[in-house]
Amino acid sequence: MDAISVIRTKRDRGELTPEQIDWVIDAYTRGEVADEQMSALAMAILLNGMNRTEIARWTAAMIASGERMNFRALSRPTTDKHSTGGVGDKITLPLAPLVAACGAAVPQLSGRGLGHTGGTLDKLESIPGWRAHLTGEEMLNVLDTTGAVICAAGDGLAPADKKLYALRDVTGTVEAIPLIASSIMSKKIAEGTGALVLDVKVGSGAFMKTIEDARELASTMVALGTDSGVRTVALLTDMSTPLGLTAGNALEVRESVEVLAGGGPKDVVDLTLALAREMLDAAGLKDADPEKALADGSAMDVWRRMISAQGGDPDAPLPTAREHHIITAPASGVLTRLDAYDVGVAAWRLGAGRARKEDPVQAGAGVELHAKPGDTVTEGQPLMTLHTDTPERFDYALKAIPDAYDIAPTGTSFAPLPVVRERIA
Amino acid sequence: MDAISVIRTKRDRGELTPEQIDWVIDAYTRGEVADEQMSALAMAILLNGMNRTEIARWTAAMIASGERMNFRALSRPTTDKHSTGGVGDKITLPLAPLVAACGAAVPQLSGRGLGHTGGTLDKLESIPGWRAHLTGEEMLNVLDTTGAVICAAGDGLAPADKKLYALRDVTGTVEAIPLIASSIMSKKIAEGTGALVLDVKVGSGAFMKTIEDARELASTMVALGTDSGVRTVALLTDMSTPLGLTAGNALEVRESVEVLAGGGPKDVVDLTLALAREMLDAAGLKDADPEKALADGSAMDVWRRMISAQGGDPDAPLPTAREHHIITAPASGVLTRLDAYDVGVAAWRLGAGRARKEDPVQAGAGVELHAKPGDTVTEGQPLMTLHTDTPERFDYALKAIPDAYDIAPTGTSFAPLPVVRERIA
Repeated sequence: MDAISVIRTKRDRGELTPEQIDWVIDAYTRGEVADEQMSALAMAILLNGMNRTEIARWTAAMIASGERMNFRALSRPTTDKHSTGGVGDKITLPLAPLVAACGAAVPQLSGRGLGHTGGTLDKLESIPGWRAHLTGEEMLNVLDTTGAVICAAGDGLAPADKKLYALRDVTGTVEAIPLIASSIMSKKIAEGTGALVLDVKVGSGAFMKTIEDARELASTMVALGTDSGVRTVALLTDMSTPLGLTAGNALEVRESVEVLAGGGPKDVVDLTLALAREMLDAAGLKDADPEKALADGSAMDVWRRMISAQGGDPDAPLPTAREHHIITAPASGVLTRLDAYDVGVAAWRLGAGRARKEDPVQAGAGVELHAKPGDTVTEGQPLMTLHTDTPERFDYALKAIPDAYDIAPTGTSFAPLPVVRERIA
Repeated sequence: MDAISVIRTKRDRGELTPEQIDWVIDAYTRGEVADEQMSALAMAILLNGMNRTEIARWTAAMIASGERMNFRALSRPTTDKHSTGGVGDKITLPLAPLVAACGAAVPQLSGRGLGHTGGTLDKLESIPGWRAHLTGEEMLNVLDTTGAVICAAGDGLAPADKKLYALRDVTGTVEAIPLIASSIMSKKIAEGTGALVLDVKVGSGAFMKTIEDARELASTMVALGTDSGVRTVALLTDMSTPLGLTAGNALEVRESVEVLAGGGPKDVVDLTLALAREMLDAAGLKDADPEKALADGSAMDVWRRMISAQGGDPDAPLPTAREHHIITAPASGVLTRLDAYDVGVAAWRLGAGRARKEDPVQAGAGVELHAKPGDTVTEGQPLMTLHTDTPERFDYALKAIPDAYDIAPTGTSFAPLPVVRERIA
């Protein structure tokens, strides 16, 4: 077995054998297959594809590269959610305590933002004292006592994926559905959850720009999960416009707490409830009532306990940015488009995101929206507010804005896309 | 400008801009673009292609990565030949002195063998004392005094190609026509020859297995040369069977000397003369008579002076291998196939070639043929003799032989392919 023959097989549109896949993942993890060989293979996979058999084996090989966790000692059924990432996607924050309040255990291993999409850990770190990094024992303890935990994944889960993900990031090979599906599912299967709900984003602010690509990714992942004994469901959800009214770390925490307090923007509440129902259903808790858990404060109680258990102070004031800049509507009419990607790029440039993995983020930076697609606006009213600690970034962030929205004449009829577009199980 | 955007352009079937090409070649040479990024780009080029404009710019950028030579100070016109490599392809050895004997200057920068194809420098190094590595001044001096020089290319010519070639070798990206064409032509154009004849091999023993691929490669290279002011012609020549009756280093030198002495196998003589005529024609020496120069010993005189000028002793006995093994015909009939690739692999396994760049080669090892396609053979007569210093290699080499030839019943009519199949100018 050698790297060149594996690369040639895929380059020439062949099917990789189970032996080739097992060997190349293991040899890459050990450093015997070089980065330049794996990147050539990744490009060949991106351009020539892998079939379902190959993807399943690739995923299994990545799982086998590290340790597996299990939650069988817990008294509650486990259920997890994964989002493919978007702008203003703070759903994990209200969702994990909500589902825990309804009787499930939610082990939510999360990541950081890269590029224009935000990261759950970055958002929670804007809460004074909160810690993302827990030992395995601490994690199980928080999960056992509060019902939910949101923390960084340990280094032991799917190390092959960790190495390959970093490589894909610098070699233009991120956008390969087989590699995205196996990357996500190897970590989730290794984590040992019993049920999994996938939130596959579609639209300008998502990796998947078209509903066809999103369907392909979702059905690939559902098959991988199901074949590995994880009850898996996917929702295809809209990411043509930001979720809610905020994009940025502390800004999104504030909005999440509003949702847990029974308020918050309708799209965030709707998606949180839709995902909660799927997670509870997949965990076998058919009688749970997430709407009630939001309304009666029990979800908020779990949130407070969960934040405290990880060192955070749920009552501490959230950081705010030192400077802000208001963008007003240049005309009256109906807002027919507010582009998720452009808003995400603006938030990123303001300091909410990072250009390299090792960069810090600003807790208070980001974009606050004052109108959403379908809303009527009046000339001169605030459309959005930009926040940053470093006002020299305003000019660069503002460049993303002129193309970010459309206003149609007053009276134009316009129906925004529903938040949940399709369900794949 | 960044590597990922260049990779994405080609990955998504776009055309690389001149600025992208100049930047990526320069940045790769400087080490700013990493090997894993260049290999992903090479795979995208292999699978999605480059058009003629892109290939021309890519070649120009590789030339610009290093120094350029020029031979304008010489009184004779320069003319060079490049072969894409085959089995038993010793043509450079008789050809360079022959063309020099007819009045041209032949600066033949050559390479070493890798895999199943032999290398001109390895062959000449079997002559006691002969040196492949000359300074620029020594090279010009040999060329000026004898009319021909065959030596290793200096490190200064197209360093980007040198780096990229080594990378392609380990990443399954050798077989990309745009990259093969630009690799060959960047070195030849940088070398500064006035005329160039390309010997593009077709068949089992060549990189190009089909006449269509060979045509595409040849016409790409002819266009690149012509556009750079080098008079360039290509011959597509047969490599389905070995050239001549020997494959191996000293064995091929011996056969080359036979050709220079007015003898030698017909196919080697025919191809040497065909290429000599093209080289002389391209150099403007229309009245030269290479047949006469072979017959009257003037080509042999140049050979002896050229070998001596590089430290070699043209009268020293050539090394022979310590052991041999004769393969006999298992039946009587007509030899209808003798596969170039299989014979090349056998010679390589016997020690004539190398598995890694740093391996030594055996001067005496190789395969000697006693019949060629079209010949009538009798059961029990010798078909070929295997030579090696390391008889433990016989078993491994013999594995390549059973599939290497076909014998049809006596009386079967069979016409071998002509050596020169097409001409592209």
